[in-house]
Amino acid sequence: MADQWSRRQLLAATTASATVGILGGIARAQTPNWAYIDATTLPVIGRPFPQTTGWHRVEGEAYPDLPEVVKNLLKCPTGLAVAFTTAAPAIRARWSTIDGKQLANLTPIGERGLDLYIRREGKWIWAGVGRPGDGTTDNEDTLVQAMDGSVKECLLYLPTYKELTRLEIGVPAGSALRPLANPFRKRVVVYGSSIVHGAAASRPGMAYPARLERNLGVEFINLGLSGSAKMEPAAARLVADIDADAYVLDCVPNTNPKLIAERAGNLIRTLRDKRPDAPIIVVMSIIREVGNFNLRWKEQLRQQNATMLAEIHRLTDQHDLTVIPGEGLLGTDHEGEVDGTHPTDLGFDRMLKVIEPTLAKVLKAKGII
Amino acid sequence: MADQWSRRQLLAATTASATVGILGGIARAQTPNWAYIDATTLPVIGRPFPQTTGWHRVEGEAYPDLPEVVKNLLKCPTGLAVAFTTAAPAIRARWSTIDGKQLANLTPIGERGLDLYIRREGKWIWAGVGRPGDGTTDNEDTLVQAMDGSVKECLLYLPTYKELTRLEIGVPAGSALRPLANPFRKRVVVYGSSIVHGAAASRPGMAYPARLERNLGVEFINLGLSGSAKMEPAAARLVADIDADAYVLDCVPNTNPKLIAERAGNLIRTLRDKRPDAPIIVVMSIIREVGNFNLRWKEQLRQQNATMLAEIHRLTDQHDLTVIPGEGLLGTDHEGEVDGTHPTDLGFDRMLKVIEPTLAKVLKAKGII
Repeated sequence: MADQWSRRQLLAATTASATVGILGGIARAQTPNWAYIDATTLPVIGRPFPQTTGWHRVEGEAYPDLPEVVKNLLKCPTGLAVAFTTAAPAIRARWSTIDGKQLANLTPIGERGLDLYIRREGKWIWAGVGRPGDGTTDNEDTLVQAMDGSVKECLLYLPTYKELTRLEIGVPAGSALRPLANPFRKRVVVYGSSIVHGAAASRPGMAYPARLERNLGVEFINLGLSGSAKMEPAAARLVADIDADAYVLDCVPNTNPKLIAERAGNLIRTLRDKRPDAPIIVVMSIIREVGNFNLRWKEQLRQQNATMLAEIHRLTDQHDLTVIPGEGLLGTDHEGEVDGTHPTDLGFDRMLKVIEPTLAKVLKAKGII
Repeated sequence: MADQWSRRQLLAATTASATVGILGGIARAQTPNWAYIDATTLPVIGRPFPQTTGWHRVEGEAYPDLPEVVKNLLKCPTGLAVAFTTAAPAIRARWSTIDGKQLANLTPIGERGLDLYIRREGKWIWAGVGRPGDGTTDNEDTLVQAMDGSVKECLLYLPTYKELTRLEIGVPAGSALRPLANPFRKRVVVYGSSIVHGAAASRPGMAYPARLERNLGVEFINLGLSGSAKMEPAAARLVADIDADAYVLDCVPNTNPKLIAERAGNLIRTLRDKRPDAPIIVVMSIIREVGNFNLRWKEQLRQQNATMLAEIHRLTDQHDLTVIPGEGLLGTDHEGEVDGTHPTDLGFDRMLKVIEPTLAKVLKAKGII
């Protein structure tokens, strides 16, 4: 049944190949009968606490002292992915976000779209995206079609910057879609700013923790808190409460020297007390290209990183603590950001050329990978 | 006056530095008195024909046989930049686009924003963007502020994917803003698809012709025609009519084998007849990652490139014609596109690693650079 549909689709698509529309025009699926399942029934990767249900990363009520803005940001399904297998020739999704507004520096696909990867020969290979509509909260799209009929392992990344209120995954009626057990055995938490959160990745799977997840074969918990990674004591407890094998702190960009002096030591000590043997990796702030000509920003960045380094040096118990300097993380041509603050896929790629081997070395030394 | 304002701004901005808002929060300018000028009075870089006024690339009436969709796309100010000098500490813009709709695979900044570069030690360095509002047609933003008071040469790239109906550039009252003569002496035309047009560059200055312009020091005319670079005879005449030193044809993605067989030979012959000595560089279609699992797309791409190569080989007069293969233009990890068709800044960066040195070699051999 699935194979028959696949051949029909291929034929129809081939005869329509002359009508390539604006923006590349991937021909939309015909409308066979689709069978949808509620994705809350599938395994979720990247969830901080196993008992959480639905699409929030963390339920803020468990941390009443967290600022409201942080509790709200934790409602976004940032870094979460659902895992399933199917031999269907096509995969479709229906999903709703809490609002359809658009940030100027993100693509709609990155902010509130879906991003599908399929495992081939042990590697996660990009397969398709779910494109949200313009200003809409209810969306529907074909993620991929015209595939061969082999069984595939799929990882579908969820929106980075919008709350998700519904997600249904569809395959042509007659095809099966089954849960895929978490393919990762180890896990790393990344606590940080909008950059960790995924601004300005072109699609959810290009946020840098998601790229590390696939490249290193380790589950990544994304605690990116756009503009609000300010190292409050409650945030320190949240990070430390997550059971993981290593912890990355990339939270300099949202702070100022005063906050860093007050809170950075507590964040690292809280984490070290609760996770005595886990490696901690601190990433200094990347260059903000907004400071190329804006003298205030240039000075602020210098002060942020200098204060963070001073605080780290004051810690008396520094074992298993690695610092990744910010200089050079974005290359030298000043072209790695969309708005002078947020890396594009190009900026993230340059960051990973430093962060990934450093992290791999730390994880290997501890036998984690 | 300008210096005094600058110091006041610096002070105000520094005291506000703790309030870093969501998404990185570059503090908005206070509101001094701004003096605006109509940017149509400034030199425009990247304009195909010197007699054109306003913000259209080409007036379609001069080519009545062009399809309406092409005439409309030529109304976008894609690849255009205005050139000016100023010693002002801050630069602001007010601009309007014909509509505020948003494509799923572009950022609003890329689609309908502004992108400012300033020359420093001979290099064009990124300085700031103009962020459009959500769903609005009338926009206003501070591009850069808190600069030192030296005279700066500025290049402001215009929206890639929306018609521009108004552009005013502002500096604090008392500062001067003056025209900058075209800083480039040679020019290259690029005719192509949505990829040339700038999908999915994160901001207008990251479209690949704009990057080549700054990197090679040569003016680039962007004839990207999203979804509609179909090599019609009228389009061939348009390309050949533009007086330039070299011509890049990157128009395989919007066609099919039948169209290529009908039209590619005519395009190249028309150009060769009118510009007998100019180098012609043909770029084959990049890999469409949508074909990673979609068997139809994989086959279509193979046929497109094979037919284009066959047509080029049939040409009897092939002097000064360089072909850049599509394989390898996007790297090998399948992560260079936002939607399986359109390169991100990362994909463009990978393309340029091949295209830029090839083009530089051709241009050097002809004494153009």
